[in-house]
Amino acid sequence: MPRKCKQPQRATAASTSGYLDLLYAKVDLCRRQRQGFPEVIYCQGKTPTQAATIFASLAQQENTVLATRATPAHAKAIRAKTRTAVFDPVSSCVFLRPHKLPHLGTVAVLSAGTSDGPVAEEAAITVECFGAQVERVRDVGVAGLHRLLAQAAILTTADVFIVVAGMEGALPSVVAGLVDKPVIAVPTSVGYGANLGGIAALLGMLTSCGSGVTVVNIDNGFGAGFAAGQILRLKRVAKE
Amino acid sequence: MPRKCKQPQRATAASTSGYLDLLYAKVDLCRRQRQGFPEVIYCQGKTPTQAATIFASLAQQENTVLATRATPAHAKAIRAKTRTAVFDPVSSCVFLRPHKLPHLGTVAVLSAGTSDGPVAEEAAITVECFGAQVERVRDVGVAGLHRLLAQAAILTTADVFIVVAGMEGALPSVVAGLVDKPVIAVPTSVGYGANLGGIAALLGMLTSCGSGVTVVNIDNGFGAGFAAGQILRLKRVAKE
Amino acid sequence: MPRKCKQPQRATAASTSGYLDLLYAKVDLCRRQRQGFPEVIYCQGKTPTQAATIFASLAQQENTVLATRATPAHAKAIRAKTRTAVFDPVSSCVFLRPHKLPHLGTVAVLSAGTSDGPVAEEAAITVECFGAQVERVRDVGVAGLHRLLAQAAILTTADVFIVVAGMEGALPSVVAGLVDKPVIAVPTSVGYGANLGGIAALLGMLTSCGSGVTVVNIDNGFGAGFAAGQILRLKRVAKE
Amino acid sequence: MPRKCKQPQRATAASTSGYLDLLYAKVDLCRRQRQGFPEVIYCQGKTPTQAATIFASLAQQENTVLATRATPAHAKAIRAKTRTAVFDPVSSCVFLRPHKLPHLGTVAVLSAGTSDGPVAEEAAITVECFGAQVERVRDVGVAGLHRLLAQAAILTTADVFIVVAGMEGALPSVVAGLVDKPVIAVPTSVGYGANLGGIAALLGMLTSCGSGVTVVNIDNGFGAGFAAGQILRLKRVAKE
Amino acid sequence: MPRKCKQPQRATAASTSGYLDLLYAKVDLCRRQRQGFPEVIYCQGKTPTQAATIFASLAQQENTVLATRATPAHAKAIRAKTRTAVFDPVSSCVFLRPHKLPHLGTVAVLSAGTSDGPVAEEAAITVECFGAQVERVRDVGVAGLHRLLAQAAILTTADVFIVVAGMEGALPSVVAGLVDKPVIAVPTSVGYGANLGGIAALLGMLTSCGSGVTVVNIDNGFGAGFAAGQILRLKRVAKE
Amino acid sequence: MPRKCKQPQRATAASTSGYLDLLYAKVDLCRRQRQGFPEVIYCQGKTPTQAATIFASLAQQENTVLATRATPAHAKAIRAKTRTAVFDPVSSCVFLRPHKLPHLGTVAVLSAGTSDGPVAEEAAITVECFGAQVERVRDVGVAGLHRLLAQAAILTTADVFIVVAGMEGALPSVVAGLVDKPVIAVPTSVGYGANLGGIAALLGMLTSCGSGVTVVNIDNGFGAGFAAGQILRLKRVAKE
Amino acid sequence: MPRKCKQPQRATAASTSGYLDLLYAKVDLCRRQRQGFPEVIYCQGKTPTQAATIFASLAQQENTVLATRATPAHAKAIRAKTRTAVFDPVSSCVFLRPHKLPHLGTVAVLSAGTSDGPVAEEAAITVECFGAQVERVRDVGVAGLHRLLAQAAILTTADVFIVVAGMEGALPSVVAGLVDKPVIAVPTSVGYGANLGGIAALLGMLTSCGSGVTVVNIDNGFGAGFAAGQILRLKRVAKE
Amino acid sequence: MPRKCKQPQRATAASTSGYLDLLYAKVDLCRRQRQGFPEVIYCQGKTPTQAATIFASLAQQENTVLATRATPAHAKAIRAKTRTAVFDPVSSCVFLRPHKLPHLGTVAVLSAGTSDGPVAEEAAITVECFGAQVERVRDVGVAGLHRLLAQAAILTTADVFIVVAGMEGALPSVVAGLVDKPVIAVPTSVGYGANLGGIAALLGMLTSCGSGVTVVNIDNGFGAGFAAGQILRLKRVAKE
Repeated sequence: MPRKCKQPQRATAASTSGYLDLLYAKVDLCRRQRQGFPEVIYCQGKTPTQAATIFASLAQQENTVLATRATPAHAKAIRAKTRTAVFDPVSSCVFLRPHKLPHLGTVAVLSAGTSDGPVAEEAAITVECFGAQVERVRDVGVAGLHRLLAQAAILTTADVFIVVAGMEGALPSVVAGLVDKPVIAVPTSVGYGANLGGIAALLGMLTSCGSGVTVVNIDNGFGAGFAAGQILRLKRVAKE
Repeated sequence: MPRKCKQPQRATAASTSGYLDLLYAKVDLCRRQRQGFPEVIYCQGKTPTQAATIFASLAQQENTVLATRATPAHAKAIRAKTRTAVFDPVSSCVFLRPHKLPHLGTVAVLSAGTSDGPVAEEAAITVECFGAQVERVRDVGVAGLHRLLAQAAILTTADVFIVVAGMEGALPSVVAGLVDKPVIAVPTSVGYGANLGGIAALLGMLTSCGSGVTVVNIDNGFGAGFAAGQILRLKRVAKE
Repeated sequence: MPRKCKQPQRATAASTSGYLDLLYAKVDLCRRQRQGFPEVIYCQGKTPTQAATIFASLAQQENTVLATRATPAHAKAIRAKTRTAVFDPVSSCVFLRPHKLPHLGTVAVLSAGTSDGPVAEEAAITVECFGAQVERVRDVGVAGLHRLLAQAAILTTADVFIVVAGMEGALPSVVAGLVDKPVIAVPTSVGYGANLGGIAALLGMLTSCGSGVTVVNIDNGFGAGFAAGQILRLKRVAKE
Repeated sequence: MPRKCKQPQRATAASTSGYLDLLYAKVDLCRRQRQGFPEVIYCQGKTPTQAATIFASLAQQENTVLATRATPAHAKAIRAKTRTAVFDPVSSCVFLRPHKLPHLGTVAVLSAGTSDGPVAEEAAITVECFGAQVERVRDVGVAGLHRLLAQAAILTTADVFIVVAGMEGALPSVVAGLVDKPVIAVPTSVGYGANLGGIAALLGMLTSCGSGVTVVNIDNGFGAGFAAGQILRLKRVAKE
Repeated sequence: MPRKCKQPQRATAASTSGYLDLLYAKVDLCRRQRQGFPEVIYCQGKTPTQAATIFASLAQQENTVLATRATPAHAKAIRAKTRTAVFDPVSSCVFLRPHKLPHLGTVAVLSAGTSDGPVAEEAAITVECFGAQVERVRDVGVAGLHRLLAQAAILTTADVFIVVAGMEGALPSVVAGLVDKPVIAVPTSVGYGANLGGIAALLGMLTSCGSGVTVVNIDNGFGAGFAAGQILRLKRVAKE
Repeated sequence: MPRKCKQPQRATAASTSGYLDLLYAKVDLCRRQRQGFPEVIYCQGKTPTQAATIFASLAQQENTVLATRATPAHAKAIRAKTRTAVFDPVSSCVFLRPHKLPHLGTVAVLSAGTSDGPVAEEAAITVECFGAQVERVRDVGVAGLHRLLAQAAILTTADVFIVVAGMEGALPSVVAGLVDKPVIAVPTSVGYGANLGGIAALLGMLTSCGSGVTVVNIDNGFGAGFAAGQILRLKRVAKE
Repeated sequence: MPRKCKQPQRATAASTSGYLDLLYAKVDLCRRQRQGFPEVIYCQGKTPTQAATIFASLAQQENTVLATRATPAHAKAIRAKTRTAVFDPVSSCVFLRPHKLPHLGTVAVLSAGTSDGPVAEEAAITVECFGAQVERVRDVGVAGLHRLLAQAAILTTADVFIVVAGMEGALPSVVAGLVDKPVIAVPTSVGYGANLGGIAALLGMLTSCGSGVTVVNIDNGFGAGFAAGQILRLKRVAKE
Repeated sequence: MPRKCKQPQRATAASTSGYLDLLYAKVDLCRRQRQGFPEVIYCQGKTPTQAATIFASLAQQENTVLATRATPAHAKAIRAKTRTAVFDPVSSCVFLRPHKLPHLGTVAVLSAGTSDGPVAEEAAITVECFGAQVERVRDVGVAGLHRLLAQAAILTTADVFIVVAGMEGALPSVVAGLVDKPVIAVPTSVGYGANLGGIAALLGMLTSCGSGVTVVNIDNGFGAGFAAGQILRLKRVAKE
């Protein structure tokens, strides 16, 4: 943790303490060394130019860069500066990653309904940026249990499960009862009325009767993907 | 609904408008005629003597009387005045009912965990006071789905389902996806922390992805039993 | 419940487990057999094209299809693929149903105020898709009790009551005290301030002093209609 | 309002600014002149001795003194110092008032259920301390509307209505639709689960569809009685 | 209360029970007789045409008609049918009232800040429709107490006080300590953050240390004006 | 997941579907096979006898059994039937586990304050039941950062971090910024006032700026320990 | 506090009580004397013309005037009347202040993320209007602790700390543990989901384990700046 | 802040990093150097023995030691080990402090009602432990404004104001409008119903219309006292 940080090429004086000072932001240049993954750019609340500058700074040092919650305007500005960046409009992610990554394992990303798609995709892309394979299983909500039970192959082979659900958020409880692997639950704001913008799903997942379910913030696909990536890195380290 | 009320034997002047005025309470003597079931005594907030007096007043006219949320003290006072009343300490109910009731049909009362027992039993006894048969299925929470799926017989034969669950309250969603009958969900205050005294289960049931699930108040086994009874009365009327 | 599913004509490999896999959605092709009513399309969060494709898939097998929360754009896309579908702009429903349905009984849909209209109509159309007759009683809020009391005929003849109200949500309590049939309460988000987007009405209905009132989510007219339909199917089965 | 305050007999230096300084409390000796009623002692959070001393201080100047939320211990201490004080254990009030008060008018105190009794009685005693007549109407909840409608005489003759209700708090809406007089609603904490300690009733009353209903805090019978007293004083002043 | 209703000229069959049935609404034609004021039209959730039709129906029988929460579109539609109606854009009210009304007394409408203006004005216009005089006192929040204390004349002469405040809602507590007349508090949604859309002000007013403060819903200027009107009618009746 | 379950010795007819039916509970006898860990007994809401019977049933088949939230009475009843069970009064756990377990790795259990001890210990014991080593680091709250930074050795060597904190729950954010391993956050109900029984800490952890922090329910040390155990099992599997 | 107010030049009759009555507002002309700073104009809820008029009135008497939450339209109107006013679009402030102010000391304004910028800047400008120097330290959130620890110089030299953070709001706790000066925390509405519009950060700051942290409303940069200004005035007074 | 810590006499190896490791707690031995005041012992959640041991450890190095939320049992254990410690049962504080402290200035501790006494006293004792003089002003709630206005002397001379209030928490707004010094508001849990355990007062204070009011947690008298102490230390430093 207090490990030394590899000094970047264009380091300014400020970056001797491990970050690049852009005045409106301090780009954390050694987060990959501390946390195993470079700093991720959360675009909401940043101007397209700010996002693009931070993206480019990171792209100079890292071969994987990820920006989430990007509007098309953010994406355009980022890609103007960093040509190789890819924009996925479903998940609102912009990313740069090498074609070949060490294969860490498989993460199953299950979603309860069609509307949970964008959040599930944000999780999936994050996992892929870590270098793991993703199995996407969509629309397997608990009101039609046979759709979930038909996924036996994935339920037995995946290493980690990310379960995305809105409304009452019951899917993680059911999945946790069927598998012997880590289950990360992502509540979504899908629903209305007593759903309270995702609070119902969040509370449901936190009070899940399925042992060992852990939960991230509402709509936080990125957080779930990141946690899954770190779990799989642990597995890889173990292999070595 | 504005139907005339059969005058009770010991009616006082006040009861000509359909109730017996005990000063601290107006006992509704013709509720059975309006609602199909006599007034039910909610003991909480009433003294044992008050509960016992109301119970006895109703017992003079009705052959089915039900008191809920009774402490042992309430039960003792009621049974001192009405010898034939029965006290069930699990559900905290005191009741009087004829041995033979017109058989209305079957209500399955499913509960997710052992701790949901008292609420489930309150529902079951209420249903029995209506004259329906109850199938009790305990401890079939969604974290061990095989326990629920093993109940295929009951899932196909019951007329109405009462599903009692605390924590995340996911069981009704799963049941509703498996049956083609009315499902009444009862959230319980079982759980802790983000359960918020049953609010998590309540919100989960209200936002259930299972179509047609209806919900009653937290821990309100009586309400669910009453609703099930009224649904079955409809079926009986249809038969006639 | 584990009953075999009638295989649809154009079943793909995937549909052997009872659903049609459209990648972004798994259309549940045997929900009618499990739940007594075909899968209903909740349009919010789906693109017009997605909604239209699912609608058409279902229309190939079912003679009743229902889509709720449809914008005019959804309606247009659906009707382009399924000419016979009808759009009701008040309730935002698109539906297809046979002219002749087995008459299941009568559902009274009461609403407290003019603004509760769209939710009440969603409930009414859902009931009609089940094959029951609907009596619509509008604007009978409790602040003018004589308007409700003037509906004596309907109050005594309907089989099931759906009561729609915003603000303090008091109407179901009053109705439940007047009838001996199932009462399903639908809170609406009509109101402001301490109404909290329908939470006040929801809490009021859940804590109703009227015995046996069951409740669905805020603005969930469909859920109430579905529950009423299932109750009436029970009655019809009883008749046979 | 900045009217001069009649100096009390045993005034200390401090009381020249209108209060008696007891170190732990500043007894407001001219509140009757500012607000039309002497300061009322809220016993909760005060020791019996503190309550008794304040009561005695006020009793030296005023012929009406009221203490609310008094435990038997408070009552005993107060009555040891002020022999003529009366303790009402139902409402937890201790009071002193002249036998003859100018008759201000009539306040109807309606309560929905037996358990609302203590709050209703606190309101009633407060009104009586103001010198108004109280008509107590108990147990007229909206689930048995005929019990309320039987009170036609009181509904037409009272000057002000205090309506006390727990659970969904629907009674004030119904009463407000039947009368042309001020209606003050008092939510009580009676109920459980989604009642949230009286919040459901409070929200229901605040969003009442009955025009002109005003609301006080949960269980605040005193506040409602005080408001009713001030309204009636206005009427009396008008007469003069 | 069950008093007979004067039959209106153009009564249809339906209106024999006291209302005019417009299909989407039941216009309560004898509310003035029951409640002392004609039905008020709450425009939100009604189309301009619906609002205009109801307004015109009432204008045929009553010389005072009030519509609240009217957009300019509502106002235009109403005035097209009822030429003499007046639109006040600050309070969003449309009204019709005779030049000469029996003078009921004086209501002081105090508001804490400039932004509370529209709510205060809705209250003021409602009071004027009842036939009372209004004294408007603006921008007297408690952070500059001298502005309030400078209003001594109004504080001593008004009959009823309506106190409108957002943010922490402290003004009613202070006013209640200065006057001996009824105080009606109106919380507004003015503020941000922990104000929670007016909840902070609402809670503050409900827990006011000022005795006898009664409260209406957030932003409900109409409700406060109506309550004040009913209190003053009581005073007038007393005079007669 | 639909893997066959090893039949227990004393299996009754019912247990052929994988559970032992005790009437009040269905003991899940093949949860270890589905989830990698035997069913855990949550004592709250169970009588001592019930807990003891379930414990003994599991102890017949498993060499690791864990009961949480045990009162001394539960512990006494369990140990009367299962002599080798150990009771830890700090964490309220009763457990049975072999002296030698396959060493899975190391979990650091960090707690912010002294009062978080019981929850941290529940997590630690659960981890140990899985067969992992635990490093306990107590009282390293963020208000004295040097206490945390002094733990450099543990921060770099542990495989998984469980971070337990009440009050504002800031510790997981800080830890997540220092390590490149999975971080599981456990909010505790330690604190008062705006802590809202642990809600403040829960929300803080869910909105953590530290990437990849996952969260369990308030005071749910067991859940965190279980999740950590499952993560480490993954690592072990990887090694094989 | 009851100190005499210096009479302004253009005082109208009304202003003899210390304010200028603009009908829609009472401009507090002696607030600087009472509170040490002139009245500040909160633009939200005021028209551009109203804001401009109040600004100009104050500018006639004061050499420092501050308006917050100004839209460009407000700014334009203000600057049309008061040419020397400056508009800062980041913080939405319009202000007028002398070039030379008595130097009160230094306030460090730390912000956790780029998105907290506008709130931090509102605080900074307010502090500068008081006459203190501001050190702005941006983007030093706790997930990258080295960025904060690199600010040792500022942490030891500043007199007061304003710490602005959204999400979990952990930064003030960490700062409070490092410094021996007053720390004022400002929660921001930055974040999503369980952040609840800033409530999570607010609760986190209120329950901070760092002793002596005081908190202002969500996004209330002005309030924090004002408090810091008043603290520094105390220091200056001490010097004299 | 990274300043070296004076090594305590009985330092163990662990304390070289600035704390004494007691296994269940790490006593922060150089907090006075970092924060200007020694670590304070929060007794709730600690056993009497734990509290006494920590108290004694601190007393060996510091001449001022403070323990809050101490029960009589905590106090007894502490005083058994540290004879000179003083227990104040009103505020539940145990403390040790020199007779002569550098006089820092004066803090006025104002409380709205008698029941706010314990919280106010906790604030006052904390301030005194810092070496400042305290002026206690009790029972000056806003419903009797003359009681507050009578305190002109204190309002003009104190350096910092701590304002303690429950219920609607309006007192700080009023005080802030009268003084030109820092105002720290402490909400208390005094009140009931819509007070929500102090949340109403807390929200009121956070949304105060009085500029520059800062707020601490509900019932956190210690936090307010600590903040006041730090502000006054700043003043003292300025003097030197």
